[in-house]
Amino acid sequence: MNGKDPIAVVMLLNKTGESEFSKADEELFQKYLNFASVILLQHHTAYMHDVESRKSQMLLWSASKVFEELTDIERQFHKALYTIRNYLKCERYSVGLLDMTKGKEFFDEWPIKLGLEEPYKGPKTSDGREVNFYKIIDYLLESKEEIKVIPNPPADHWALVSGLPTYVAENGFICNMMNAPADEYFTFQKEPVDESGWMIKNVLSLPIVNKKEETVGIATFFNRNDGKPFDEYDEQITECLTQFLGWSALNCDTYDKLNRMENRKDIAQEMLMYQTKCTKSELQSILNAKEKLNQEPEDCDQKELYKLLRTSIPQCKDVELLEFHFSDFPLSEHDLIKCGIRCFFELNVVEKFKVPAETLTRWMYTVRKGYRDITYHNWRHGFNVGQTMFALLMTGKLKKYYSDLEAFAMVAAGFCHDIDHRGTNNLYQTKSASPLAKLHGNSIMERHHLEYSKTLMENEDLNIFQNLQKRQFETVQHLFDVCIIATDLALYFKKRTLFQKIVDSTSAMTNEGEVLNFVSNNATRKEIIMAMMMTCCDLSAITKPWEVQSKVALMVASEFWEQGDMERTVLDQQPIPMMDRNKADELPKMQCGFIDFVCTFVYKEFGKFHQEMVPMFNGLMNNRMHWKELADEHEAKMKALEEERKRLEGGDTEGEGKSKTCTIF
Amino acid sequence: MNGKDPIAVVMLLNKTGESEFSKADEELFQKYLNFASVILLQHHTAYMHDVESRKSQMLLWSASKVFEELTDIERQFHKALYTIRNYLKCERYSVGLLDMTKGKEFFDEWPIKLGLEEPYKGPKTSDGREVNFYKIIDYLLESKEEIKVIPNPPADHWALVSGLPTYVAENGFICNMMNAPADEYFTFQKEPVDESGWMIKNVLSLPIVNKKEETVGIATFFNRNDGKPFDEYDEQITECLTQFLGWSALNCDTYDKLNRMENRKDIAQEMLMYQTKCTKSELQSILNAKEKLNQEPEDCDQKELYKLLRTSIPQCKDVELLEFHFSDFPLSEHDLIKCGIRCFFELNVVEKFKVPAETLTRWMYTVRKGYRDITYHNWRHGFNVGQTMFALLMTGKLKKYYSDLEAFAMVAAGFCHDIDHRGTNNLYQTKSASPLAKLHGNSIMERHHLEYSKTLMENEDLNIFQNLQKRQFETVQHLFDVCIIATDLALYFKKRTLFQKIVDSTSAMTNEGEVLNFVSNNATRKEIIMAMMMTCCDLSAITKPWEVQSKVALMVASEFWEQGDMERTVLDQQPIPMMDRNKADELPKMQCGFIDFVCTFVYKEFGKFHQEMVPMFNGLMNNRMHWKELADEHEAKMKALEEERKRLEGGDTEGEGKSKTCTIF
Repeated sequence: MNGKDPIAVVMLLNKTGESEFSKADEELFQKYLNFASVILLQHHTAYMHDVESRKSQMLLWSASKVFEELTDIERQFHKALYTIRNYLKCERYSVGLLDMTKGKEFFDEWPIKLGLEEPYKGPKTSDGREVNFYKIIDYLLESKEEIKVIPNPPADHWALVSGLPTYVAENGFICNMMNAPADEYFTFQKEPVDESGWMIKNVLSLPIVNKKEETVGIATFFNRNDGKPFDEYDEQITECLTQFLGWSALNCDTYDKLNRMENRKDIAQEMLMYQTKCTKSELQSILNAKEKLNQEPEDCDQKELYKLLRTSIPQCKDVELLEFHFSDFPLSEHDLIKCGIRCFFELNVVEKFKVPAETLTRWMYTVRKGYRDITYHNWRHGFNVGQTMFALLMTGKLKKYYSDLEAFAMVAAGFCHDIDHRGTNNLYQTKSASPLAKLHGNSIMERHHLEYSKTLMENEDLNIFQNLQKRQFETVQHLFDVCIIATDLALYFKKRTLFQKIVDSTSAMTNEGEVLNFVSNNATRKEIIMAMMMTCCDLSAITKPWEVQSKVALMVASEFWEQGDMERTVLDQQPIPMMDRNKADELPKMQCGFIDFVCTFVYKEFGKFHQEMVPMFNGLMNNRMHWKELADEHEAKMKALEEERKRLEGGDTEGEGKSKTCTIF
Repeated sequence: MNGKDPIAVVMLLNKTGESEFSKADEELFQKYLNFASVILLQHHTAYMHDVESRKSQMLLWSASKVFEELTDIERQFHKALYTIRNYLKCERYSVGLLDMTKGKEFFDEWPIKLGLEEPYKGPKTSDGREVNFYKIIDYLLESKEEIKVIPNPPADHWALVSGLPTYVAENGFICNMMNAPADEYFTFQKEPVDESGWMIKNVLSLPIVNKKEETVGIATFFNRNDGKPFDEYDEQITECLTQFLGWSALNCDTYDKLNRMENRKDIAQEMLMYQTKCTKSELQSILNAKEKLNQEPEDCDQKELYKLLRTSIPQCKDVELLEFHFSDFPLSEHDLIKCGIRCFFELNVVEKFKVPAETLTRWMYTVRKGYRDITYHNWRHGFNVGQTMFALLMTGKLKKYYSDLEAFAMVAAGFCHDIDHRGTNNLYQTKSASPLAKLHGNSIMERHHLEYSKTLMENEDLNIFQNLQKRQFETVQHLFDVCIIATDLALYFKKRTLFQKIVDSTSAMTNEGEVLNFVSNNATRKEIIMAMMMTCCDLSAITKPWEVQSKVALMVASEFWEQGDMERTVLDQQPIPMMDRNKADELPKMQCGFIDFVCTFVYKEFGKFHQEMVPMFNGLMNNRMHWKELADEHEAKMKALEEERKRLEGGDTEGEGKSKTCTIF
């Protein structure tokens, strides 16, 4: 006995020399049996230990393979089974993979629906699929190991012809054929299955079922190694294994899903690029080589094209591109594309870095098209930031700290910095759980602008940095990271103290060469100044002449109010005062606050750093005065109204609860 | 002994009444020992069996949870561990999850690089990450079970304060503390860890390492159930488990990757929709409500808008929309948008299915924008197919078999059927391994046109079917499937015989009512005719007046040649003659072949089916005559050239190898 379970029965027959066994015989036999029992039990326990040990080894090794990589079901099953083949203790095994398609295409149904073809009447899996093995993997373990993959096996393939795999697929049973040649229900081949002379003796076949209860394949094990038929423990072990394999099909489904998702993403991105890329006629509208040079741009000499661009694009002085007080209002959006290109010529980077004229034009045009037609964060804003960066470098004299390549990247990043802005801020992305927020944890929109800018660089037709060396190109990519992420105002306070320290240090220096050395020989200081320059550019509308600033401030506010409206309608939330159009009257006061708590630092410190930038600070102070005036006016009006209300209320409700306060004074 | 391994040692001391043990004592003791050995071995084997059994159970149950769904690492570890908690045989366990981020953001590096902040000097994992537990999951199994999740645990949290988890994370060792309170290296709390009064007695701590050899977390088990310290088998079991858990982190990474991929796909699709959707000013260019009605379309009465559209869009008779010989050449692409809208008014489906005028306009405009500016499969072709469908229904009198809704869907599908075509066929997609080919196994481009068309329907602003009931909408979707997939010429031969049978059957009928009944009461016949109508529309250029056909044929051929050029340059393959611009001379001959083997059947059978369609067949035959003339001309020219060549060669090489054939005749 093993506890309460009988393990074996021993029977003694016909006592020698006596007619029957005595009481003493029984007792003696019982004693021997106790000992035999212990030995038997030990044998049984050792066998069970082997069974469990094989199970855990098989599971662990299969898992090791399953989690090695995401792959298709054929490869995954193959890898797992091949790894644990020695634990299986059989001569051969085969895995039949089942077609997972459910139902037919509409056009394949037509002949059936019209009665011209018989509907399928063959075996089906429990989840309603036609039983159809699209692949068999056959492993011969005996003597020389051999693996064969048979795609689309015919029905009379030796592994299928008995009908057993189909039967298992249909019914989901584990089938253990102890003596295959003698089986009457299934017709196993009685002669060797192939030229190797190998013959089927006993068979164990199990369904491989996934977590959705669909049979994905059939595993069949042939001829136990020791010649005996498979026993219940073999069934347990293989059941455990096939269960694991079936479940692990999740990874193959995921692999499929991931590939499909990636394909869809690639398709959408390619379509997007087609739709947003500067077209031939758009290119022509800026770089009119066909009219002027009577040739397609690709066929023209670059020098000719540069000349053409230079002459057909407004000079900096014509449109005040070098001025801090530049305004885009008099120019069309199309003109601004030309102005953008002009900046690069003025920086002398076009010829130096061999930017093909048509690539530059196409890129600038495509950047313009990347901006949406929204109230404030549109192409005009994008352009203004690029232009201000250009002005900071040239007029603000900050160029001296940076190489031509760095200046090139900084101005380009300026133009790109808000590309594809949707008129809503990072918090709105988070609150509305937009895909952008799910993708990027912080600096959500900035990371999006950056990714989009980089996508443009990946396109050879648009890559203005195409003729750089690898290291130079990496530098540009890094500068784009710094410049565009820096426009997240949430990071502004982080960099404020660092910038302050730099300005303080340089203020103490008397020698200009010392300052130059202090900044331009330190990559970190250059990055910090660059990041603060981006903020300086991004907020520069606040430093413009009052006619400009007052208009722009209203555009910014309008976009905020639109977001506020959406917060109310879409998110069902009360917007903050800045985004609440019912608090529009408080705009002047809020502008003063914004100037005091955010802007003043930037322009004051830059003014200290470079005297050439003081005009920006002056512009800011002038605007502060205007906003303060308006704020005071509004406050006075409110106060007057309040007093009027109190007066009226006092008259109306005299002697009531309200009068209490009156009597105190 | 267990085989050659000693399991235990028994020692007898001081024989009673004698100075030493005798030989006989030894023999007797040996006999008893044999028996004791068996019992001991049995006990040991049973214990080992329990160990292995726990291992395999734990693996199987963990696997069952791991493969249940894709989820994040916290949830996955929790589910797996919680399921197998009873096999762990300990009072409490905790899992600390490690932050996987490597390196800092550039702006967090600034203060360090400037020497204002100390660089990190604390413990690091073997793959270089800072050891930082971002979450602890704490499971108390004793008496009342309790699970606590502690996000961002402080360093002095009881599960961390000893320093053991950090040590394990840093070194990757398995640590077994047999007597925790006495440990000198780690300082486990000596009083109860919380108000429950529970105290740490012994601890087993293991790293959870993924397949990339990164430590993702630390599992720590406290107080073995039976009060004893954890032994080497506990180490084995938990090592097996943590190994499995670590490997299974692949699924969590995949989950992450899949989500990121989906977000990127969604972002790209949203951007694409923004870029391709009809804009306000484009809408205005067709439906000029603002000028004419002085209101935004949304604010106008639908009847007014319908009237406005009807009056501002050319009448069918003005532009021959009802004619099979209609030509788009005299019209601009913008005009064709208007013509498309007109078709729906003529079908009387706009009012009937409550299609808002602005939605209809926006949809038609967006469909137009969905077509690329390529040589043949552009918006003009898309429009022509929709127009021909309209003409088949109306002039061809096929409308009588279909409901208004069906006709609506068929014409709409006609306009959409080649949307976003890239001028290359399915085989090219496969050969170039485009994402489209990877996504769709067959009818690659057609499935893409269909998906895109359906994407437009998902957008409320564009969904011309927005006011249908659910069932009606499903019908429309199915008809789009049938109509658009049917334009894959690879399916043409499948449906040919089925269509033939229908035409043959109806030809034998004398009564028109009988035909009507035979077709319109059978959904399958309707679908087959519909599918053949799509082919009829798709190929209809071949039936147009010769001036049109000769021009269109050259456009089709040019697009083929462009694909042929790409096959040569991109795929480095020789194109088939149809796509080989060096074989352009053979175009007339190839056209004759195409007419004979593909087109004739369609228009002949449709002519038999409906007499009203005979003009299309006549057009086809007329074009065949023209192509045949050109083919004959070319053949004659070739023949003459060949003869000239032979004559010249004959003169040149007389008496040589070539002359052999001459002598035979």
